[in-house]
Order: sequence, then C-alpha cells, then structure tokens
Amino acid sequence: MTEPAIKYRLIHEDKHTGARLGEIITPHGTYPTPMFMPVGTQASVKNISTRELKEMGAEFILGNTYHLWLRPGDELIAEAGGLHKFMNWDQPILTDSGGFQVFSLAGNRSIKEEGVTFKNHLNGDTMFLSPEKAMSIENNLGSDVMMSLDEAIPYFETYDYVKNSVERTSRWAERGLNAHRRPEDQGLFGIVQGAGFKSLRKQSAADLVSMDFPGYAVGGLSVGESKVEMNRVLDFTTPLLPADKPRYLMGVGSADSLIDGAMRGIDMFDCVLPTRIARKGTLMTHHGRLVVKNGKYKADFRPIDDECDCYVCQNYTRAYLRHLFNANELHGQNLASYHNLYFLLKMMEDLRTAIANDQVLEFREMVFAQYGFDQVNARNF
Amino acid sequence: MTEPAIKYRLIHEDKHTGARLGEIITPHGTYPTPMFMPVGTQASVKNISTRELKEMGAEFILGNTYHLWLRPGDELIAEAGGLHKFMNWDQPILTDSGGFQVFSLAGNRSIKEEGVTFKNHLNGDTMFLSPEKAMSIENNLGSDVMMSLDEAIPYFETYDYVKNSVERTSRWAERGLNAHRRPEDQGLFGIVQGAGFKSLRKQSAADLVSMDFPGYAVGGLSVGESKVEMNRVLDFTTPLLPADKPRYLMGVGSADSLIDGAMRGIDMFDCVLPTRIARKGTLMTHHGRLVVKNGKYKADFRPIDDECDCYVCQNYTRAYLRHLFNANELHGQNLASYHNLYFLLKMMEDLRTAIANDQVLEFREMVFAQYGFDQVNARNF
Ligand SMILES: [Zn+2]
Ligand SMILES: [Zn+2]
Repeated sequence: MTEPAIKYRLIHEDKHTGARLGEIITPHGTYPTPMFMPVGTQASVKNISTRELKEMGAEFILGNTYHLWLRPGDELIAEAGGLHKFMNWDQPILTDSGGFQVFSLAGNRSIKEEGVTFKNHLNGDTMFLSPEKAMSIENNLGSDVMMSLDEAIPYFETYDYVKNSVERTSRWAERGLNAHRRPEDQGLFGIVQGAGFKSLRKQSAADLVSMDFPGYAVGGLSVGESKVEMNRVLDFTTPLLPADKPRYLMGVGSADSLIDGAMRGIDMFDCVLPTRIARKGTLMTHHGRLVVKNGKYKADFRPIDDECDCYVCQNYTRAYLRHLFNANELHGQNLASYHNLYFLLKMMEDLRTAIANDQVLEFREMVFAQYGFDQVNARNF
Repeated sequence: MTEPAIKYRLIHEDKHTGARLGEIITPHGTYPTPMFMPVGTQASVKNISTRELKEMGAEFILGNTYHLWLRPGDELIAEAGGLHKFMNWDQPILTDSGGFQVFSLAGNRSIKEEGVTFKNHLNGDTMFLSPEKAMSIENNLGSDVMMSLDEAIPYFETYDYVKNSVERTSRWAERGLNAHRRPEDQGLFGIVQGAGFKSLRKQSAADLVSMDFPGYAVGGLSVGESKVEMNRVLDFTTPLLPADKPRYLMGVGSADSLIDGAMRGIDMFDCVLPTRIARKGTLMTHHGRLVVKNGKYKADFRPIDDECDCYVCQNYTRAYLRHLFNANELHGQNLASYHNLYFLLKMMEDLRTAIANDQVLEFREMVFAQYGFDQVNARNF
C-alpha cells in the first residue's frame, strides 16, 4: 500500500481537555494544529493576496469545488498546472466536495443513489454531481486534502431520514475512495454525519473508519443548531475517530467555537466568517466585536485592536478604516479582512501554546471574558 | 524670506527634445523627475495598499481636496496628524485645489469673484469654495504640494470668456498665496490657464511667475481637446515657465502623453487612468492595451506582459486574472491596478534613463510602435 498523502503527528494533549497539539504533514509542507483555514471560494481569499496570507501566518487555505467546477472549470485549472499554481499558493489547499453548495445554492435538486441532479446558480444549466464526479473535479484541482461527497441535510430531521442519509453518505464515501486517481499526492477525508443522533454518528464513524481514510471531518454542524448542541455532538463524535488521523470541523470560524472545538479534539477549522463580516466593516478584537462604521469611531485614532500586532493595527486607525468604509473605498475590505484573518490565526497560535502548557481552560476563560462570549445576549461572533 | 518647501534641481536636458531629468526636493524626500503620480482620491489609491505603492516605486501620490473636505473632513485629517499619517504614506503628497471637482461633480454652481457656491454631490448641501478656503483645507491636509484654486473651464470657449477666467485665476492665485499658512513645509503651485490661446497662456504665466511660486502647473488640458492640440499648447506654454521650478501637467496618464509631455519640459503628471481602466480589467502592456476579460485569454497562461517584471506578472497569468474579473472577485482589481501603475512608473524610469542618454526620440519611437500609438484608430490609452 502506498504511503498516504496526508499524515498526522500528535505532539501533546492538554491535561485537562481533549485539545491536542499536533502537526499535519502534506505534499506542500508540515503545519501545526489546531489550525484555522481561510476560505478562498473562487481561487481567491476575498480581497486578500496570497503573499498577505503567508505574511499573516496562514497554513492551509480552502477552495470550493462547486464554484471552481462552474467557473473557471476544473479542467482549465488542471491545464494551468493545478489550483496551487493557478492561484499562486504553494502551501496546502483543502477542497470541499461541492455537495454543500449544491444543497445550499443550486436549484431543482433531485437526489438519487447515483448522485445529485441540480440546476446551477449561475445560468440554471442542469448538472450532475456524483461521488465519482467530485473526485474527478478535486483530482483536477490537485488539492492536498479532498473531501468525500456527502449529503448536506438540515440539522433537525427525523431519525429515519438521517439514518437513510448517513448510510448513503457511507456508500458514497466508498465510491469516492475507489474513484480517487491520485492517492499518492492527495488525501481524501471521509465526513462523519448523523446530525444530533449519537447512534447515527457512531454508525457513520464506524463505516468511515473501516475504510481507513487519512483524515476525517465532522460534518452537518454549524448549520443552525445552538453552540451547546454543537459541543454536545462533538463530545460524543470525536472519540469515535482514530487518534492518529487529523479531524476537521467544517464551517466553523467564531473564536469561541474554535476553542470549544479544539477542546473536543478538533484539529482543523474553516469558515468564511472573518472575511465575510470584514467586508461589512465588522472586526474581531481581543475586546469583542467592533463595528468600525459606527459613528463613535469617527475621530478614534487608535488601532482596531490595541493588543494586535498585525500589519493593519500597526499602521492604520479606526478613524481611517471608518472613512474607507463610509467612502466606499474597497481597500477598507482588504485591511479589515487582513486583520480578522490575522486575529483568528494568531488566536490559534496562542491556543497551541496553551495546549503545550496544559492551560487550555485558562486560555478559554480569558478569551471568553475579554471577547464577551460570557455576556448575556452575546453575539455569535 | 524663508526657504521654499519645494525645490527643483535640473540634472540633464535631452539634447534633442525639451525633456529634462531632474529631482524634486520635498519635506518627505527627494524624488527623480519626470514622474507619474498615482491618484488617491479619497485618501486611498483605489484597491492598492501604501506598501504596494512603495514596492512598485511610486514617488508622489495625489489626494483630492474636494473629496477629503467632504469626507472625512480636512479638520478630522488635521486632528489625525495630517493626510500622510492618516493614510500611512510617508512620501510626498500633492493635493489639488478642489476646483476641478466643484466644476465637474457638484451641482448648481455659481461663480463670483469671491469664490464658487455649489451643492455638493454627496448630500446636496450648499457649500462655498474660495481661494482662502482651498488653502485652509490644503493646510489642514498638510500635503507637500498644494494647488491654487483655479476655474476649470471647457477647452473650446471664446477668447473673451477665457481671458476673463484667466485674470480671475491670477487674482485667486495671489489671494491663495496670501492665505497660505504653512509655506515653510508646504509648497503652493500656481496653475497656468488660457485654453488654446497663446496670448492668454502668456498672460497667465507672466502673472503667476511674477508671484514666484515654487512650482507651476499647466491646467485646462486633457479635458477633451486632441492630443495634437494639447502638445501644441505645451509647446508654447512650458517655455514661459522658469527652468528652475518643477512643472506639472494635470490629469494626464496615457503612456504617449507622458512621453510627449516630458519632451515639452513637463516634470510631473497624474491621472486616475491606470487604476480606473484596471478596475474594468483593461491592462497597459509593452504591446498595447490588453482587455483581460476577453474570451481569448481563458486558457492563456502567460503573464499580463511578458516584458514586465512586476509582482503580478511574476506570479499570475492572464487566465487567472480573467477568472477573477469574470467571477467578480475584487482581488482582480488589486492585481490589475498594481500592474498598470507599475507599468507607468517603470516607463517613467525608462524615460529618465533615455533622457540621461539623450535618447528620448528613440525611446518615444520604440514605445509608440510597440504600444500601437502609431496605428490608425489607436485608442487613447
Ligand atoms: Zn490587527
Ligand atoms: Zn506587470
């Protein structure tokens, strides 16, 4: 059997929680975990250059299979030499399967055992996505970590509905594994589903672990359920996964959830949240959310976050950012996105230090108190 | 008398044209001329960071007095420590007087000897701009080079109309000079007007030169007249200006006009052209304009310009830029703007070398042939 393309090495487990310091070894280098991965949906992390990503300490970034399949097309990207080369990024890339967008963006969906027929959101053309097609696209993209096609379902469905979906997702995972053309340089992860049902999460994990993927994702969370509920599911799901493989929690990017997820043994996170809210001028800081368009920042010549040592906080003020947003100067989106991504990447670095020192609980308490996650009516980010 | 804030040193004149290699000495450093100045209308060169501007070799940048007066307000910028500090730019800044925008953007204008009353384009409030007010705003902004308030008039007006306007512009220039609060660290330039009338340009230049400004602009060009006409006016206007002061041609930024202007003794140019066309995906290259959204670049994995050594051309392809524009990814505007600004800045550097070597005519011939300015129906940029 060939060496898997993706490997994980556990370095240290926090004495008081499930948080684990490790590293993930990829064809594009080795990076420490837990990590947060910025999202570059259409081969671009919105308003941010790849050299800015490197400067801020990004490790992996994400690309979205559905979007890239539609535009510019996975075959064109293959012709360009793969997604890394196309977008000028020489560190690891993770691609999702396309399933999430098919279920959230596309129209007229019809799901069958063979795959999903849908109309794409750009021109309404009828398209078909199967486990084999997802592999074919992701193989063309050449990402370091590929995801199996799964069915994205609403969180609050009946047990029977979820069980049926979980079983199909397992069959699709196996079909994907068989269709994967480049196991030597691309690692395919399985996605554990099962909504809030412990027995179904158990069944899903058992199915996938028996197929020996080089890594596992926990899917179907952060889709509307409460944070308490998400943590409850993680509590019983991550112990079902092998300790020598990386674990990825999909679509999670608020500071509290990154810490809470890591405490439950998650190694990888991604979310559009930091860049999406940045585009509207909402900033993450050590002292909570800061809506920079607010009038009270008009003559505030302090940095966004006085505890942040990022390029933006070292050189620009709240008053300047407020001006850029008010004047519709798009450069404001660049500066705000830079800071928010840096904030999360730096928080993950601090979290790794906390794990190494067995101080994750203290770290959580400090971050939650400073950010205001402990307050009544705290916002979700 | 105090030492002027802005000085000019002539280094070498091309043997065969009026092009001159020099340097302009400012409170924020000394920079070689002829130079092209990127425009940062609202305290931001659109989609470009100040460190990118430095990296690409920008010298001066522009700020627009009208826009900054309205938003965020010149008093706020003064409170921030001036425009340099507000926008994080420690090289020279030139500000216009606001007059051009009052005449092109604002509504309900009424021009009197005292100044111009108008309704601003943001909220329709009635405002008043006078030579003294322009000075007050520009002093608050703290630019290295300030411009006198002049009347921006259509090019093809009657002699009497233009004569009347020129005489008022001279009176306004003198009022501005008297109102200028910071001559020790900000240099005020006079603006020679007179449309296409040689005698009026002569009268305007004589008036202004007698007031001994540290620099002079040629205004009222690039407003719809032909390039032949613009060159004709420059031919008789620049000789009217003192050789020991810098000369600035306002609002000119196409490659051919930069060379033609420099050949007529112009030292400084500014224009929104390179960033404006970049935002639509139009690129300046050594081989002419390239409209990157064009279908023929879909699978073109060459750089924008194979003779350009800018960061963008070293790392990205036409196919990638086309994808970003097609997918509405704003990062494409950053990459395209970067390349276009670099292209003009580098061309000016090459032009300076050509002046030093007395090869301006050869340089012009080469650039015009390569870019296609010699072709029938050549576009203006
Ligand atoms: Zn910051
Ligand atoms: Zn270039």
